[in-house]
Parts: sequence; structure tokens; C-alpha cells
Amino acid sequence: MKKQSIGIVETKYFTFAAPPDEMVLESGQKLGPITLAYETYGELDQNRGNAVLALHAFSGDAHVAGYHKGDDKPGWWDDMIGPEKALDTNKYFVICSNVIGGCKGSTGPSSINPETGEPYALDFPVITIADMVNAQRHLIDHLGINKLLCVIGGSMGGMQALQWVAARPKMIRSAIPIATALKHSPQQIAFNEVGRQAVMADPAWNHGQYYGKSRPERGLAIARMIGHITYMSDKSMETKFSRKLKEKDYSYGFQTDFEVEGYLRYQGDSFVKRFDANSYLYITKAIDYFDLSGQNLIPAGTNIDVHFLVIAFQSDWLYPPYQSQEIVRKLKMRHMDATYIEIKSTYGHDAFLLEVEEETMLIRHFLNRLYYGTGEPDLYEI
Amino acid sequence: MKKQSIGIVETKYFTFAAPPDEMVLESGQKLGPITLAYETYGELDQNRGNAVLALHAFSGDAHVAGYHKGDDKPGWWDDMIGPEKALDTNKYFVICSNVIGGCKGSTGPSSINPETGEPYALDFPVITIADMVNAQRHLIDHLGINKLLCVIGGSMGGMQALQWVAARPKMIRSAIPIATALKHSPQQIAFNEVGRQAVMADPAWNHGQYYGKSRPERGLAIARMIGHITYMSDKSMETKFSRKLKEKDYSYGFQTDFEVEGYLRYQGDSFVKRFDANSYLYITKAIDYFDLSGQNLIPAGTNIDVHFLVIAFQSDWLYPPYQSQEIVRKLKMRHMDATYIEIKSTYGHDAFLLEVEEETMLIRHFLNRLYYGTGEPDLYEI
Repeated sequence: MKKQSIGIVETKYFTFAAPPDEMVLESGQKLGPITLAYETYGELDQNRGNAVLALHAFSGDAHVAGYHKGDDKPGWWDDMIGPEKALDTNKYFVICSNVIGGCKGSTGPSSINPETGEPYALDFPVITIADMVNAQRHLIDHLGINKLLCVIGGSMGGMQALQWVAARPKMIRSAIPIATALKHSPQQIAFNEVGRQAVMADPAWNHGQYYGKSRPERGLAIARMIGHITYMSDKSMETKFSRKLKEKDYSYGFQTDFEVEGYLRYQGDSFVKRFDANSYLYITKAIDYFDLSGQNLIPAGTNIDVHFLVIAFQSDWLYPPYQSQEIVRKLKMRHMDATYIEIKSTYGHDAFLLEVEEETMLIRHFLNRLYYGTGEPDLYEI
Repeated sequence: MKKQSIGIVETKYFTFAAPPDEMVLESGQKLGPITLAYETYGELDQNRGNAVLALHAFSGDAHVAGYHKGDDKPGWWDDMIGPEKALDTNKYFVICSNVIGGCKGSTGPSSINPETGEPYALDFPVITIADMVNAQRHLIDHLGINKLLCVIGGSMGGMQALQWVAARPKMIRSAIPIATALKHSPQQIAFNEVGRQAVMADPAWNHGQYYGKSRPERGLAIARMIGHITYMSDKSMETKFSRKLKEKDYSYGFQTDFEVEGYLRYQGDSFVKRFDANSYLYITKAIDYFDLSGQNLIPAGTNIDVHFLVIAFQSDWLYPPYQSQEIVRKLKMRHMDATYIEIKSTYGHDAFLLEVEEETMLIRHFLNRLYYGTGEPDLYEI
């Protein structure tokens, strides 16, 4: 039975770091004012102890659950967030914010540079996952929350969860990094780099100066097509498409014979309507720069206690399970409470969005134990 | 000790199917005249029974071994072909021809269309692996060979080997398909399709009409970069590059930070100097169309006896071992003599070019047994 949605929700905006108090980035450059688009669901409890921060993946946004007025498509993780869902909005106060560098309401390369009155384009400073998290920390402060019950996210969202722990361990009770890594491997960097090259090879990209003109849609669509191949698995593609033929399409002078080709073109074409090419460049670079492998996630010699649930998927070849195992190994060396689960799935990297039932069971259990203690009856209902 | 090279070699050309006797393609269209660029090494024995046809992969050519006069780079499989090598030119007569549709001397989209006096471009007919093999069959007839001791190739070369068996089983004593498949999976089609899209998105492609003008170099380079990622493995990229940084390069306005990025750009840029973008489109389509999974490789009810050595590599995720196992399963159902070997390697798909020692041992043994019978002393020296 499909659980009900949280219903109509609204995106809110929080602006901070106005000059001369700009936020200092990891690179040393300054950025401000910064706006974060965010949404919240549920209610904060009396102790402000039930806040869960959901962190989005590469192309996500703040709209993680419920419906915007007039829309018939819910938020990107609506299956997981709402009444009685994995992040149960009857119990928890769920927050999601769009990252800086993005194009869904938060400050990014398509935002107006206050110094010029024009979009930043490539004048936008290099940003990192640490910068994204630092900006979110301002939002969490603004919401009056001293300690987050949980930070949770898949893919780049998982990197943010790990970064939250590394940067502000005392603000975090637990973290659920899903289908993610401590650092990008050369293969992962390579896929991102080819996507960036595809964007930059489009003459319409024009060194980032395309706002108000025609946009680098062909290049961005190709970048997205590459991404989509890596999000699925050999097996899930076989199941979905096999070698089925579609109607022939001579629009580009070379045929789209197979259904998988039509699917990729559709995914590419629809992505360019909702995403900014420069954000593609900045965010993929932030992901490639991410590397917590050389440091302790939790400072040594402290009595900090963060609980971890680390989830990987067997057919995920973009963020293979061995990368999640490396996270767990690092945590265990610091004697952290870390549970590792490898979910059987044929969906590839997309599994973190699709394996809702399995994830729900694991996450509800984990959060209930943390928030209510083991005696909470709901534990046994699941 | 590195074995010696066969030395200086020359590419030869064979032209046939001149109008009105054009070759009929699988599509029903006609093509002619057709030129095949080819090379041969070693000598035919008295019975013309020692001919081995080496078949090249997607971007290969007829120059498989030895050196062209003045060149310091040998043929693409020189490690495997020459005196005392896997295909021992002291024993066997080795032939390699460039495929039709290609751009290395054989008739392809960059060749002059006799009807117009201009390059074919997209007027070149759709070609298939069966058409490539059919053209080669004319060359083999021309060389006076009734039966090939062996057809051997990796990747698309392996598809041609399988197609040779399917089309002309009585002309084949043995086949060695390496790192290949009976058909392209949707994931394999998807990677090819993104490459084609990258080529066609380049405005210089101009619906294939770029000969004598500026060529779609950026698009073709991106296509090649995608290919290169799929030819390596996660592990081999980690070994080769890890997260090492290179000198910063601002040439495209976005940095090349990591060595793997510089490597991919270099591979892309050097590929466009030696390959034609329209050949990229035609040959990848031929590969995607290839599908022998629905038919018997060897006709039922015949006493045809072809011996098979099927080789796969553990870390090859582009042509995973399960695809080679499917070939073997099909052969075993027809009671063929088929040996399956899965070589331990971390090189990914590139392994068929790099795991020379292991391949040499297997292939020398296999060919010796076939050609000399089991009593041949060299069998025990290996």
C-alpha cells in the first residue's frame, strides 16, 4: 500500500553572509550574500532534538518531499519522507536545502554577482563539498538547531553527510551515508570530466557566458546521457530495454534504432530544461575534489559519539560497495558505532532512489533506536 | 626477453566489386568498387593450410605487426604477431585487413563515391559486421585460400571471428574470439550512442559534410574519451592515476586538475588526428547491430567441425566474461570443441592488447595442436 504524501509544501529562502561578512570558502575566496533554498516538513520537538537533514545528490534540489501547489510530480525522495515513511514526518523535523553552486534557488553561477549586476558565470568561485556544508550550517543555526539527530543522503548527499561529521562532529548524533565514497576514484573523476568536456565543447557554452542567450543544450544533454549510463546497471538496462527497437527517427541524420538510445536522448533533453550548464561544471568539480580519505572523520582523543548506518548496493558500479566498506573501515578504526548494509539490488547507483522498502526498514529502525531508545514499540512493528 | 619484430612491412590494397558487380550488403544496398587495405606476414605453406586471419577492433587497421618504413611505432598487435610469437610468422601466414566503413585505406564514408566524385559522407550505406566479413571473404578468395586455419580477434575483431564462422563455417578450422560478445547489450549500445551523439553535436560535423573543411574534432575527441574510460578498469585507473594532480591548465577555462583528466584529453586529441568521425558513426552502428544470439553459430545437422578458444578477462566490464560464457554455452549446445579461459587481469577491456604472455601461451598451444597435431615438440616447450 502506498503511504500518503505529506501534501502541499513550499520552498523557503534564507539569505546570509551579506558583505562585508561574506562566507570564506575553502579556497580562501569569499562569497556573499548567499541564499539557500530549503524546505522543512514536520515539527521540531520541544528539545529541538528531532531534526534530520536530508542532503541531495548532484542534480537534486530542496524539494525532497510533498507537492508544490499545482504540480503533479512530488519531491525527489517523496517515497522516503512523509508520514510513516523512512524519515517519518510525524516524528521528525526534516530539512533539505539546495547546495550552493546549484541552480534551484541557491546561490550559484547563474545568480547575479552583486559586484557586476550580471550572472556570475565563471566568476563564481570554485566551491567544495565543505563549502556546501558550511553554508548549510548557517541555515541550521538560523533554524535554532544545535544538534542534528541525523544527516542522510545518497551519492553527493552522502559526501555531504560525511563532511558534516568531519567538520562539525559535535552537531551530529548520527549519519546515514548511502551509495557514496570518501573520495572520488580516477574512474569517477573521468566520467565527470567527460561530461564537463561535452558541456564546454558546445559553442553555445561560450566560456560560461550564455545567460540571456542560447544555452549549451546539446553539450549538457550529452553530459547527462553519460551520467545516466553510470546510474543504471548492465542488468537493469537489460531488463528495461534489452535490444528492443523503437520507431526510427532520422532527426539527426543518424538513426535512433534501439529503445535505450531514445531513452538516453529523452533523459538528456529533459535535463537541459531544468539544469544550468555552469552548475554542472562547478558541482561535478566539487565532487571530484572531495577527499576525506586522508584524515580521521572523528577527531582522535575526543569522546564524540556519532552513530553510522552505511548503505551500499550490490550492482552500483559507479559507487561500488568497496567504497562504502572503506568508510566503515575508517569508522571502526575510531571505534565508532557503524553498521554496514549491502542491499541486493539490480538497479545500480539509482538503487538509492528506488530500493525504498529495504531502506525504509533499515532507516526507521536506526532512527527509532536513536531517538526513542530500543524500547520504542514501533521498532517491532516494522 | 622481448621477441624480435617481423621487421619492415607494407600495406597492400585489393579492389573488387566494381560496377555492375557491386557487393550486395545485408541491407540490400549495393557497394562497389570496394578497396580493402591489408597486410600479410609469413609464407603460405604448400597446402595453403596455414593462413590465420587477424581481425581488428573498432579503431584498428590492417597494420597489425612489424614497422612501416620510417615509423618507430609497430603495428597494433606486434607483441602477438611475429617470429616465435603467439601467431608465429615462421609457421603461419598471417593476414589482417582494414574493415569496410573504416578510414585506414579501405572503402568507407571518407572514400570517393564514384557516382558523385565527392566523399560518400552519409551517402555511404549502412554496414554490418556481416558486410565487413563478406568483403574480407573476397580478399581471402583472391589470396587463393580455401580454408583458414584460424580467425582471431578481440572486441569487434572477435565479433568478426564469430561472424566468419556463422557465414562460412566450411572455410574455418578454428576461431579465437577474445573479449567479445554474441550481441551488444543495452549498456554497450548506450556507450556507443553517447559517443555518436557527441560527434553529431559538434557543429563542424555538419550532417557528415565536413570533408575539405574543419572537422568535428571536439566531438570526436569526447567520444573517444568515453571509449577510453570503458576500455580501462576502475582498478587499472587507480593504479595508473590514483588522484594525482597534474600541472594546472586553464586552456578551456576550467581546470585540468587530475592526471586522469589530462590523460583523457590527450587520448581524445590524438585520436582525432587518425580517425574519421563518420567512420566512428558507421562502425559503432555496425557493432550495435551485431546479434548472433538468436541463431546457431554452426548449422545443425552438418558435420562441420570448428575448434574454438574463447578468452575473456576478469576485469573487463565493457565485454564482461558472462558474454564470453554465452558464446561457449551456444557452442557446447552444438557439441563443438570449445575451450573457455578467463584470464586474471586488472587491465579491463584493454587486457586483450596487454596480457600478451598469457594469451601467447594459450594461442600457441591451441594453434600448434591444430596445425601439427599433439605430437609437435614445440607444444612442450611453451
